[in-house]
Amino acid sequence: MKTYELKNINRAVYNRLLERSAIETGKSIEAVAPVLYEVKKNGLQGALKYAFMFDGAFERNIKVTSAEIAKAGSNLSPELKNAIKSAYKNIYKFHIAQKPKSLLVETMPGIVCRREFRAIENVGLYIPGGSAVLFSTLLMLAIPAKIAGCKRIAVCSPAKNGVIAEELLYTAKLCGISEFYKIGGAQAIALMAYGDKELPKVDKIFGPGNQYVTAAKTLVSIDRNGCAIDMPAGPSEVLVIADKYANPAFAAADMLSQAEHGTDSQALLVTDSIQFARRVEKEIVQQSRKLNREKEINASLSKSFILVVPSIEEAIKFSNDYAPEHLILNVKNASKLIGKVSNAGSVFIGPYSPESAGDYASGTNHSLPTYGYAKAYSGVNVEQFMKSVSFQKISKKGLKNLSKTIITMALAEQLTAHAQAVKVRL
Amino acid sequence: MKTYELKNINRAVYNRLLERSAIETGKSIEAVAPVLYEVKKNGLQGALKYAFMFDGAFERNIKVTSAEIAKAGSNLSPELKNAIKSAYKNIYKFHIAQKPKSLLVETMPGIVCRREFRAIENVGLYIPGGSAVLFSTLLMLAIPAKIAGCKRIAVCSPAKNGVIAEELLYTAKLCGISEFYKIGGAQAIALMAYGDKELPKVDKIFGPGNQYVTAAKTLVSIDRNGCAIDMPAGPSEVLVIADKYANPAFAAADMLSQAEHGTDSQALLVTDSIQFARRVEKEIVQQSRKLNREKEINASLSKSFILVVPSIEEAIKFSNDYAPEHLILNVKNASKLIGKVSNAGSVFIGPYSPESAGDYASGTNHSLPTYGYAKAYSGVNVEQFMKSVSFQKISKKGLKNLSKTIITMALAEQLTAHAQAVKVRL
Repeated sequence: MKTYELKNINRAVYNRLLERSAIETGKSIEAVAPVLYEVKKNGLQGALKYAFMFDGAFERNIKVTSAEIAKAGSNLSPELKNAIKSAYKNIYKFHIAQKPKSLLVETMPGIVCRREFRAIENVGLYIPGGSAVLFSTLLMLAIPAKIAGCKRIAVCSPAKNGVIAEELLYTAKLCGISEFYKIGGAQAIALMAYGDKELPKVDKIFGPGNQYVTAAKTLVSIDRNGCAIDMPAGPSEVLVIADKYANPAFAAADMLSQAEHGTDSQALLVTDSIQFARRVEKEIVQQSRKLNREKEINASLSKSFILVVPSIEEAIKFSNDYAPEHLILNVKNASKLIGKVSNAGSVFIGPYSPESAGDYASGTNHSLPTYGYAKAYSGVNVEQFMKSVSFQKISKKGLKNLSKTIITMALAEQLTAHAQAVKVRL
Repeated sequence: MKTYELKNINRAVYNRLLERSAIETGKSIEAVAPVLYEVKKNGLQGALKYAFMFDGAFERNIKVTSAEIAKAGSNLSPELKNAIKSAYKNIYKFHIAQKPKSLLVETMPGIVCRREFRAIENVGLYIPGGSAVLFSTLLMLAIPAKIAGCKRIAVCSPAKNGVIAEELLYTAKLCGISEFYKIGGAQAIALMAYGDKELPKVDKIFGPGNQYVTAAKTLVSIDRNGCAIDMPAGPSEVLVIADKYANPAFAAADMLSQAEHGTDSQALLVTDSIQFARRVEKEIVQQSRKLNREKEINASLSKSFILVVPSIEEAIKFSNDYAPEHLILNVKNASKLIGKVSNAGSVFIGPYSPESAGDYASGTNHSLPTYGYAKAYSGVNVEQFMKSVSFQKISKKGLKNLSKTIITMALAEQLTAHAQAVKVRL
């Protein structure tokens, strides 16, 4: 793997290392714009046209029946069902604790301000199809949606030969979801955003997807007739910070588990020991022999690199500049670094915290900001399925106390009717 | 004003009443795209080119000096300075209480998950110029940014004849802001989003603006080299719910204070009494004689309407469907309705809570979701200047307990390297 030493690179190279691989979004946007237009105009009919064209899906009845959901699981192994239930429990525990509390502050005598949280009423969850069935993603989106109290939770996922994988339906059942549609791609996003009788419009869409799904989400998020989305998306990535005390086999395994996600994934190692770096490289070669998804792993590793830094402090600085989706701190006294991490999606502390623990079952969410977005965005959490509403109740005396302030400011901003609304009351 | 009675309208009319006036965003996007392109390529030089072209601004040194900020206020009346300080105190009190707390949950023995909040390091605040100097908006954005702990807070606002209004600089000083630039419009948004030596790139932009500022914010928010933004914007609006016990003069004053905001503002009255509605109309005519901004008020009222409903419960239902930026509950026992409000930006309870109190000084934020966005978006708050990072620390025993769950799920999703990262550790 390409190795850089911090002491030998200039600012321009440093900045280049922070960059993600360029994504040609223009083409995807062009590709999905007609899909959105069609669905906006013709609803489900339009969506079905593209579902047939892109996915060969010809079923007109896209809603999974309650009977299909009810019986889901009968063909799954007890081990898998137990695993999904254990993950559910941990994710639930960590997310129920996030539920935001209302707030009441008397800012001045007679002026009571409140902040209350309300669930977003209608949310749409997108679960991609493709090579693997990502039931874990359904857990990560449905659990906070349920905790938030969303009235309607609509799930869209592409069917294979007209069938949704039983793992997904079982997970939906476990999460108490009854609205599940067999449709994927940009047409699914458009259908959720613009709605139709069969799938009423949602207020916000969550979930990952390929470049077309991402492009469709972008477009509906800036369309006044569209809806909100969770966050912008990019390829998955991990940054492993490890020192010479770490086990190179662990670091290699973590990088490989990131690399298998997709050809555009990035797995970085930042270490203060070049000897350690060499050992990790050897481990990567050895371990990758035992794994599937060779194509993804090779392509992803070709986009990855090792950075050797003079100190772990410099490693943290680079990480904060890079803002990784996943950050692994496999160093001595790793817990002491928590306070220094400013930009990251999810952080794994110490030798026994692999990324895959957070991907599935530790309790944290795996829908995280990629591509440097961790500088401004959070991973999926309960509040993202809610919004806050502020309230103020002012007594006559309270308004009297505040009247001079309001009137003076309103007049200074040349808004006489604003002043008038106070004067008329006193 | 156009009056509708709920009992006489069908679903199609009801839905039309929920709609906002269409906004031609395509043209604004086309207009600002070259500005963004130029600033992205040529930084400050590019921005200055458009500042000259659009605003006639020819100063090359756009940064306000610390001396200018330090001396701000000497020409302002003590009344105004005291008013700004009072507003500051209330806004600070309500926003400091919002500061989110970290979270620590042991989801299973040996698995400790944490959620910590970190300030977004670099934020940009945009304060529009135009007919009025909106120093109140600077309070609403700078106070939560400071409470969040943002390292850099950059403010952009267009200068008039090379000068920033003293009210704005005084407010900046009060908020502890030292980075203030004399530049406005799409070029200011582009400069903050893409950065240059003189104004380094920010991670997120907050603040209102005209159609070009809004279009620029939209474009940078979907550009991978751009930055995040607070929320989508639309014209300001109020929905007043009042019953026959309310004072028609209060309702009229509230509608007028909204109407003066701009020609595209909307001020709605929903009431269960047609007699009351008539009295409000009379009051509007009488009160508007005393006000400035006749053009804005007339245009805005022509877009507004009265809806007569059989009950206050129906009024709340309409309001939740409309999702107003401002909601005034001027009815008997208004506090009892708080729990029923699901979609609104800021709510004003009872006869003595005019919107202008919240616009300036009650303590709540006045940067709120318009255009129905309150269904999915919150008004500006402290968390929007922060993001959450999740952490997990797993002990060897904790990983052992969870290993079967992770490995089973990883293999079911065909991610062998994810399973491998656990196996290699045990």
